[in-house]
Amino acid sequence: MSFITLTTDFGTKDHFVGAVKGAIYSELADAKIVDITHEITPFNITETAYILKNSYKSFPEGTIHIVGVDSELSADNKHIAIELDNHFFVCPDNGLISMIASEIQPKKIVEINIHDRVESSFPVLDVFVQVACFIARGGNLTVIGKEIYEFKKLVEIQPKVNQTQTQIIGGVLYIDNYGNVITNISKKMFNDVGKGRSFKINASRYSFTKIFNKYNEIIGKDAKDSMQFDGEKLALFNSAGFLEISIYRSNLDTVGGASTLLGLEYRDQIIIDFFTESKPEYTPLT
Amino acid sequence: MSFITLTTDFGTKDHFVGAVKGAIYSELADAKIVDITHEITPFNITETAYILKNSYKSFPEGTIHIVGVDSELSADNKHIAIELDNHFFVCPDNGLISMIASEIQPKKIVEINIHDRVESSFPVLDVFVQVACFIARGGNLTVIGKEIYEFKKLVEIQPKVNQTQTQIIGGVLYIDNYGNVITNISKKMFNDVGKGRSFKINASRYSFTKIFNKYNEIIGKDAKDSMQFDGEKLALFNSAGFLEISIYRSNLDTVGGASTLLGLEYRDQIIIDFFTESKPEYTPLT
Amino acid sequence: MSFITLTTDFGTKDHFVGAVKGAIYSELADAKIVDITHEITPFNITETAYILKNSYKSFPEGTIHIVGVDSELSADNKHIAIELDNHFFVCPDNGLISMIASEIQPKKIVEINIHDRVESSFPVLDVFVQVACFIARGGNLTVIGKEIYEFKKLVEIQPKVNQTQTQIIGGVLYIDNYGNVITNISKKMFNDVGKGRSFKINASRYSFTKIFNKYNEIIGKDAKDSMQFDGEKLALFNSAGFLEISIYRSNLDTVGGASTLLGLEYRDQIIIDFFTESKPEYTPLT
Repeated sequence: MSFITLTTDFGTKDHFVGAVKGAIYSELADAKIVDITHEITPFNITETAYILKNSYKSFPEGTIHIVGVDSELSADNKHIAIELDNHFFVCPDNGLISMIASEIQPKKIVEINIHDRVESSFPVLDVFVQVACFIARGGNLTVIGKEIYEFKKLVEIQPKVNQTQTQIIGGVLYIDNYGNVITNISKKMFNDVGKGRSFKINASRYSFTKIFNKYNEIIGKDAKDSMQFDGEKLALFNSAGFLEISIYRSNLDTVGGASTLLGLEYRDQIIIDFFTESKPEYTPLT
Repeated sequence: MSFITLTTDFGTKDHFVGAVKGAIYSELADAKIVDITHEITPFNITETAYILKNSYKSFPEGTIHIVGVDSELSADNKHIAIELDNHFFVCPDNGLISMIASEIQPKKIVEINIHDRVESSFPVLDVFVQVACFIARGGNLTVIGKEIYEFKKLVEIQPKVNQTQTQIIGGVLYIDNYGNVITNISKKMFNDVGKGRSFKINASRYSFTKIFNKYNEIIGKDAKDSMQFDGEKLALFNSAGFLEISIYRSNLDTVGGASTLLGLEYRDQIIIDFFTESKPEYTPLT
Repeated sequence: MSFITLTTDFGTKDHFVGAVKGAIYSELADAKIVDITHEITPFNITETAYILKNSYKSFPEGTIHIVGVDSELSADNKHIAIELDNHFFVCPDNGLISMIASEIQPKKIVEINIHDRVESSFPVLDVFVQVACFIARGGNLTVIGKEIYEFKKLVEIQPKVNQTQTQIIGGVLYIDNYGNVITNISKKMFNDVGKGRSFKINASRYSFTKIFNKYNEIIGKDAKDSMQFDGEKLALFNSAGFLEISIYRSNLDTVGGASTLLGLEYRDQIIIDFFTESKPEYTPLT
């Protein structure tokens, strides 16, 4: 039994997802196909990278992840298959793998070259399914492509640190279903740069000097009613390990979420200042 | 083989659903995971209760239902596992089970206490998956929690009956994909209180004196063309057994649905007056 | 193991899809249920026909396709089961099968007659599931219905050709997730009528004299950067074999798609003029 996941920008209305699943089952009747998402913003590589990074690892080892976002073949958009962390990825080489591969070295990367036989405007169906089923049957990557040693990097997902190590300049990576604003600043980077110093997070015209680890830590131990905290702004490290700006129990359709209430959008800047004095919380160093 | 269903407010774009499914398959490769929905309005317990009540029963006995809506652990939001009607539910104790459990007595309820080992801002992934897989492998509920005998009730889902039994004061429970307005008044309650008397349903500024059992009963036997009834308002007992206000062949995106055309929203009042005279249809008792 | 697909206008929030899946699994625990889509515009037969045509064929032979769009039983909306192209379809007889059946002759059609025992406002759950499971267990269609030889045709999906064979008058059939505008003009019809003549496609106030086979053919071989073509209009034969008007790397949420940028909607006219002269591209015959 093979696990094959799908991460695409196809949406769930069109025939695309159904056609792809049918094609997989026609080749591998006992495959287990799992949708990670089909709601990626069309052609958005950063979103894809974030979602993939935070979901692939929970799947059993050997799972094959098909990624269909901006996947039409062209001179500057090759198709690749990657073995990494005991998982397989079949995807375009457009940077979407770089968020995973920046932390874990790929074991093998091949540039898929079965295209001589396949001219297609729907490569996920016509190429990626074939490749995934080939891998699922135990096939060796080098049979369907030639080994390469580089993959495209996604530059925008890396926050910057200033020379004096007093500032992290990050940005909004993703906005989730609750309107939570997820930044590209990881807990690891925060700790490595901050080294326990006090800090101030600047997000839009708001600032935060505390980072929670769970949403409801904002309630504290003495609060009688958690409802009184509904709508409070907070910063926390989310379950994916990234700094997140959140509204406690938000709802984009009614009260709004952090993205709408703080006016934060994809790619907006989030800056963290660190202070060397013990607690001069609001006086940035000059 | 175990059936595990998921009912959440995660949406289908984020990595949450994929991560949860991957984690289940990593523990139980041959599980059958079925999405009930991930489109619950964030933190809406009433919607969850309604959807769960109307879907759980079709699943095979022994199915384990994971419910991830407002599930962060806190002093007033415990995690529980319930055996009821030969099904299992793993969920927060925030009232979402009460619509089912008000009709069928739970066989066993435990307050999950494996949390000492798990600190989490994503309890569905870190706690509920573990509990569900434990149950799927035949584990006893009392191993993962201590037995309790109470669960939180959801008060707003119960309609009221006046003292003279001439009026049911209900409300809008849910608005479905077609814009149909579903009330909290069940066919059983209607029959118990109405006892065959004539009646008038008041919904916004409209009223209804007839309740259908199928949408197209409105057409009647002599109608030549069902299209002429498109857009007609009607009241019926829906397939879930609740009083529903509907527009025949509605479409929220074009002609509108009952919710938009009648201006009815979640929690709006729906009142049924019953008449003791044989057929004084439009003269309410004073 | 049986494959059963679902194509409905239920949406994915309500309990409908979960209830149907539960019911199937309760009858056939080892069924493989695959969602084609639940996002059909309510009651839209043309969309259903298009999506079904383009997805059913990838599934393994013997797959049973349940179609729940406008499926309430009435005098002019019978329930039918069809064997066609080694696939089975369980659906209302409202034209949605005609796009498939216009090309491939059904092997058998029956009008389902198990309804005497089932009064239902949710026929997909109460009737179609039963029929599909019966077929999955190898049952003969004639046991659950009486054979018929006609099915309802969908007239609007057929483009017209003028008498002199110089013009195809088609229309917009479907708008996909990227805002691509899909017409009802197939590559086969285009070739049959056009016979290699030069042509001009008129869509809204725009025209096209070239049809691509892949989106990125617009880039050509000499282009250094594919990004410069983002937002370009193009006509192509899509992977389903239909003429499509597209915007290269469109996004309905940001830059817009062909549907919004060209102002094209479902049912709008798309006209192709063919020219007998060798290349008088912009002078229509009079």
